[in-house]
Amino acid sequence: MEELKNRILQDGKVINNEILKVDSFINHQIDVELLNNISSFLASHFENVNKILTIETSGIAFAIGVAQQLGNIPVVFAKKSKSALTDNNVYSAEVKSFTRKINSTVIVDKRFLKEGENILFVDDFLAEGNAALGLLDICNQAKCNVLGLAVVIEKSFQGGREKLEEAGVKVISAASIGNFENNTPIFD
Amino acid sequence: MEELKNRILQDGKVINNEILKVDSFINHQIDVELLNNISSFLASHFENVNKILTIETSGIAFAIGVAQQLGNIPVVFAKKSKSALTDNNVYSAEVKSFTRKINSTVIVDKRFLKEGENILFVDDFLAEGNAALGLLDICNQAKCNVLGLAVVIEKSFQGGREKLEEAGVKVISAASIGNFENNTPIFD
Repeated sequence: MEELKNRILQDGKVINNEILKVDSFINHQIDVELLNNISSFLASHFENVNKILTIETSGIAFAIGVAQQLGNIPVVFAKKSKSALTDNNVYSAEVKSFTRKINSTVIVDKRFLKEGENILFVDDFLAEGNAALGLLDICNQAKCNVLGLAVVIEKSFQGGREKLEEAGVKVISAASIGNFENNTPIFD
Repeated sequence: MEELKNRILQDGKVINNEILKVDSFINHQIDVELLNNISSFLASHFENVNKILTIETSGIAFAIGVAQQLGNIPVVFAKKSKSALTDNNVYSAEVKSFTRKINSTVIVDKRFLKEGENILFVDDFLAEGNAALGLLDICNQAKCNVLGLAVVIEKSFQGGREKLEEAGVKVISAASIGNFENNTPIFD
């Protein structure tokens, strides 16, 4: 999506050729007009979605945007839990954070995922794919159908797409970065 | 706002006459159609807003909704920081959490609040007002004008509105609960 790529080139900051900082328009300050356009682009690739699933925090804004474009369907956000808890009322999965190098547990109340529902994941970043794999684990426990992952920015050199496609999850990104050269993103 | 009050009566769960659980439509699963309607109601009470300010996590969805209704203005969400840090690049404030009984530090990057900007706070709950007072502290540091707080659910018996109005902050809530009787919310 050209608008997002241009914005990344203009306002993104590349840190050590691995991390892209987009906090001025995606995940600390959010450009809502851009969010609407990204959401419209992402939503156009999916149909028959019953519910959006994301993980707190920075996926929530785009989950709302995509849900609006798909007819105001419900959004569920998985919560980060401090400890691996044994709670019969929630589905839980382990997620390794790429940025923070720690494992965390994410949970979804069992009331909010029903067998047979068509679920679309939404997130701001796709790197190694661990967050989406955690959501897939949860959806498998709930016997939901996962229609795919709609992600704002993909860093394709980190292998997340391969893992997800191998697991049968279709991936659509609004901008995909193949690598960084001299601290500049090179798009796929 | 009648639609929200009816939904609270239908799907909200009152816990020990103090906590109202609305996780099936506000802050774990989000009813996006209801979010749009609440956002429209809240936005109609404010004008000349330059930017929305909220705190992660559950304020973000409604911040996006209100920002869309006000002409797709930018949203900034304050981040929770694990420690009181000394960082010249951020504004920070202490916030006491009503639900969790702990203090936390919230931060906003100085690049995202400019002197003279008209700021509207958005949040899901108003109880004792501590989150909004923290945001007010940050806006005062940044020399922004605070136009008010737009909140989804107010628990007026916990005194947040008084503190905020005393500090000059106009408060608009989509539903205001005066007290609970026999585990049922009584609206103001």
